[in-house]
Amino acid sequence: MLTQALGSLRVRAPTPGLFDITEKVSGWLDSQRIADGLLTLFCAHTSASLVIQENTAQAARHDLERFFERIAPEDPALYTHNDEGPDDMPAHIRSALTQTELTIPVQAGAMALGTWQGIFLFEHRQSPPDRRIALHLIGEGE
Amino acid sequence: MLTQALGSLRVRAPTPGLFDITEKVSGWLDSQRIADGLLTLFCAHTSASLVIQENTAQAARHDLERFFERIAPEDPALYTHNDEGPDDMPAHIRSALTQTELTIPVQAGAMALGTWQGIFLFEHRQSPPDRRIALHLIGEGE
Amino acid sequence: MLTQALGSLRVRAPTPGLFDITEKVSGWLDSQRIADGLLTLFCAHTSASLVIQENTAQAARHDLERFFERIAPEDPALYTHNDEGPDDMPAHIRSALTQTELTIPVQAGAMALGTWQGIFLFEHRQSPPDRRIALHLIGEGE
Repeated sequence: MLTQALGSLRVRAPTPGLFDITEKVSGWLDSQRIADGLLTLFCAHTSASLVIQENTAQAARHDLERFFERIAPEDPALYTHNDEGPDDMPAHIRSALTQTELTIPVQAGAMALGTWQGIFLFEHRQSPPDRRIALHLIGEGE
Repeated sequence: MLTQALGSLRVRAPTPGLFDITEKVSGWLDSQRIADGLLTLFCAHTSASLVIQENTAQAARHDLERFFERIAPEDPALYTHNDEGPDDMPAHIRSALTQTELTIPVQAGAMALGTWQGIFLFEHRQSPPDRRIALHLIGEGE
Repeated sequence: MLTQALGSLRVRAPTPGLFDITEKVSGWLDSQRIADGLLTLFCAHTSASLVIQENTAQAARHDLERFFERIAPEDPALYTHNDEGPDDMPAHIRSALTQTELTIPVQAGAMALGTWQGIFLFEHRQSPPDRRIALHLIGEGE
């Protein structure tokens, strides 16, 4: 029988950039009684986002971070909005270019991630605050 | 008991750029008998898209629009496809860089949006037509 | 009564770029007993992605591909990560800028796509391998 569950995670990245939250998400999933279904993660912020990326090569994550620094630099001359400092507007742009939410099929108790896929919080602020990720799971039990 | 509802919104942005549709979406949600669940918005167009962004600072939305004008400019020299004018191809690119659909958890009758998050139609055409946003809601009643 | 179905597609793009998988997805949907609901596609890779784009004008797809070649070029001087060749890091970046998953409402047996929308696998590797797309469908039968 189909059921659903709502939850949330609170995470804080140690530094700006990609922060692996795959285990935290898996941990929450493991605590639910749904083995097959659909999991949604929703980042309740506009200066942090979600992205599924390479889970092994640190250099790949570093290069991805550099790309976003090049494309949306912390250059006040580019922006009129600057309320919270030079990282404010780049944070909104980098969020818009990545994901606010991710929806992932769940099969036999595990997310349908590929071998090299991890789930990352993409923290865009220089002084990372706590971030809230809302979770929704719908599906059937074991 | 889990139920679902399908619906649609018709919206027209007054100008190109970010157009706040949070209230329209909330209004539809309020008219349904589902308090906890998952809401999906799907933009049925390739020259308009969806984005969750800062809901207060107009300057932030302005800067975001300028960013997309810089990164995907209306410059016919850059594109071969030009069937519907110089805003045609930039519209497709800006859509591909943002979202065609958004999936948002619903809890106690409200979307799990953060304090500073709004839902925006990102209109990319210079003469905005009516846009259709398909809606799907699944969950449980009060 | 609400039910769900899990499945997967295996697809291989003939060349890098946008590869139309709309018919393959529709074919799977047609084989299910759910007429109204929500369909999720999840690309289990970090060097290929999903995008909903113009389904008719080949020039538009060509221009979109050129845009991603300009914005994330195969230029080894830009990246430190290079394990699998010069197309490795651009592939991760182009994936991060587009979608790993798509969620699409289904109504009367068909996806709620607009007239000009198609679903594309965006293949980023020069020698495209087989790609796995996990599918989840939830909804009600005819």
